[in-house]
Amino acid sequence: METISPIAVPASVTDPSSFGFAPCEGGICAAEGIKAAGVHSGFRADPNRRDLALVAADQTCVCAATFTQNRFCAAPVQVSRERAAKGHARAVILNSGNANASTGDPGLKNALASAAIVAKVLGCDEQDVLVASTGVIGVQMPMTPYEVGVPAAVEALAHSAEAAHHAARAVMTTDTVPKEVSMAGPVACGADGTEVTVHVGGFVKGSGMIMPNMATMLCVLATDAPLTPAAAQKALSAAVYQTFNKVTVDSDTSTNDTCILLATGAAGGEAIGEDSPAFATIAAAIRCACENLARKIAADGEGATKLVTVDVVGAASSKDADTVARSIANSPLVKTAIFGHDANWGRVAGAAGKCGVEFDQYGVDIDFLGVPVLRAGLPLPMDEDDMLRRFEEPEVTIAVDLGVGSASARIWTCDLTHDYVTINGDYRT
Amino acid sequence: METISPIAVPASVTDPSSFGFAPCEGGICAAEGIKAAGVHSGFRADPNRRDLALVAADQTCVCAATFTQNRFCAAPVQVSRERAAKGHARAVILNSGNANASTGDPGLKNALASAAIVAKVLGCDEQDVLVASTGVIGVQMPMTPYEVGVPAAVEALAHSAEAAHHAARAVMTTDTVPKEVSMAGPVACGADGTEVTVHVGGFVKGSGMIMPNMATMLCVLATDAPLTPAAAQKALSAAVYQTFNKVTVDSDTSTNDTCILLATGAAGGEAIGEDSPAFATIAAAIRCACENLARKIAADGEGATKLVTVDVVGAASSKDADTVARSIANSPLVKTAIFGHDANWGRVAGAAGKCGVEFDQYGVDIDFLGVPVLRAGLPLPMDEDDMLRRFEEPEVTIAVDLGVGSASARIWTCDLTHDYVTINGDYRT
Repeated sequence: METISPIAVPASVTDPSSFGFAPCEGGICAAEGIKAAGVHSGFRADPNRRDLALVAADQTCVCAATFTQNRFCAAPVQVSRERAAKGHARAVILNSGNANASTGDPGLKNALASAAIVAKVLGCDEQDVLVASTGVIGVQMPMTPYEVGVPAAVEALAHSAEAAHHAARAVMTTDTVPKEVSMAGPVACGADGTEVTVHVGGFVKGSGMIMPNMATMLCVLATDAPLTPAAAQKALSAAVYQTFNKVTVDSDTSTNDTCILLATGAAGGEAIGEDSPAFATIAAAIRCACENLARKIAADGEGATKLVTVDVVGAASSKDADTVARSIANSPLVKTAIFGHDANWGRVAGAAGKCGVEFDQYGVDIDFLGVPVLRAGLPLPMDEDDMLRRFEEPEVTIAVDLGVGSASARIWTCDLTHDYVTINGDYRT
Repeated sequence: METISPIAVPASVTDPSSFGFAPCEGGICAAEGIKAAGVHSGFRADPNRRDLALVAADQTCVCAATFTQNRFCAAPVQVSRERAAKGHARAVILNSGNANASTGDPGLKNALASAAIVAKVLGCDEQDVLVASTGVIGVQMPMTPYEVGVPAAVEALAHSAEAAHHAARAVMTTDTVPKEVSMAGPVACGADGTEVTVHVGGFVKGSGMIMPNMATMLCVLATDAPLTPAAAQKALSAAVYQTFNKVTVDSDTSTNDTCILLATGAAGGEAIGEDSPAFATIAAAIRCACENLARKIAADGEGATKLVTVDVVGAASSKDADTVARSIANSPLVKTAIFGHDANWGRVAGAAGKCGVEFDQYGVDIDFLGVPVLRAGLPLPMDEDDMLRRFEEPEVTIAVDLGVGSASARIWTCDLTHDYVTINGDYRT
């Protein structure tokens, strides 16, 4: 009997050993020259819940950032977008409990004032403080938590894994786990090309909500690599495009999405520009860190029981591949089928076919959980028991070969469950 | 205190009195010259469940049709698309229980064979028989149900409300109710412009599924108006664009969607072309019938508790308005909020802002359930008790004014509930 091979999908960059790095401790504080803190400041009623995070470099350093494309964009995004554009920053202040979105001029003034408080206590230029918020929208920011919390956060600043962890916790909303990453490896950027050890670390919050609002992604990354501002932005933009922008929990884009990279240069060595030989390794590490966190967002999607990776190969263009992969990943029918442990290739085919991308249905192959289920548009016999066993794994893979060209795309998502409906359907009280 | 007016949205065409028609009995058999039947033929195991519908004109008549745009398109769609293109048909044979999709050449042969059986028993040209199917995909059609069921259906053909109702029931899958419409009114298309009474009737099935598959919409409409083929197609295409194509239950497009209009001309009068004075009235009636059925699909969406109408006005173009309305209607966060009786304008704003359409967030107004909740991008105080009372109604309206131009769009959807997850997440057994 002919053996039918699974669809070949692009290699993952989840493993940092592929570019000579290894996981390390420390979260965002893995990067030399970075301190962090997470404290309770009063945005939330529960005194045991941290709600204010501060990430500060020892001195003003290189900064890059990406922000939500949502037309409704929150006040902190407006402030941080402008300030990050100059390529340098000293600190990022983040809160959960209030998104400062749809708040008009008073909201903008409050965002600026919160940065000013940080600048005053930390002793730096206001322009070097970035702001990020997540939580309820349409409600003006209370300022007392900043007045109380910022001095406490500055006091608590430390270059430690525990401090990094506190910061990661302070931005959680409906996230069920804090999400951190850190790795280290050699980069040839010392004098005469000698190697220095570079660290990349960070945390993210994602898929959470506080009523009434929407999912928000906030991410802060730090590296001690001596990146130039342009190189930092290039590496971050590329990484975000390939990772966070490829995650969809429920197709809803937040008003507050923010991803900030601080590059302290404390690893030593010569400045790394976009054309430096060392750039590719740093960019790979930043992408790897982002992918690690992006997968953690999808896995912790509201109500999710499975991390789902959708690969589309054989497309005419990357855009086509992305459109098809996203159509599958956003399909409620596909997502509920996965929740039901149903390798429902028919729904995958339907989602692939509906999105306007051109292909011949009788040129399409589909694999579910690594098992060929459709070849040349026609179903193959399926061992249902084997499929049910494969569904026991925490990750579900779907691969589609459109049979048109050679472009590909990968999207991460999660299943759609009763808990998603419960989390988002409960009337806010 | 200043009274804030709700957003003005375009008038509905739900009411046939706006063009001089009135509801009548008969379903698809309201149209003179049309007979229908719905029988059990064996596509389903339950002998009490009708699974084969036949709609036949007394003689070959004018026909118009629209079909799924999904790249994965079922065999019956391939057959009917080609045959409907010539503008004439005698009968439509529809089944539930098997979609005849992803079935390759054997599936195409089976679709053709099923039409041939109908043609033989009915005594007409095979080319005049259209085919539509809904149900499981990737499984070859059993032909015995046709051999048994078609003679029974032809025997049962009747020009009666009961027969129309049986046909409407025979195409149901997870639909909870049969969905029919019929109306009648005077049209000036007789000799010397005298009035004749024209009927428009039809049925639709929608949002159903049989495991493993996807939602399918099948619709058959009939009128006794003496439309030309071009006029029938023009009226149907315009109506479908404004009604069925504006419904989204879960953003998933079926492989089998089919909408067929038969125009018998039995009402009498002169042929109605696209330029006839009577065309506008007939087109309005067809659109009204389609809108009636489209709303019934949304209201009977899988697991739905509410029919949701999303109006977007003040857009730069119809396309922009449609994109924003669809983004809101497809947002799982908006849909779960409605399930939770939460007038969550923040999620509506987020969905409006995420879809790439340009507008100024501080130029946007939003109404929820007819109540102004956002003006110029800023929230208004909300009477929560009043909102909860308004949520008792079976229909929920959301209106958004983008404040950019004068174009508008209306989309119908439903809420996202636990039952949707249950219906689509249960492992197929």
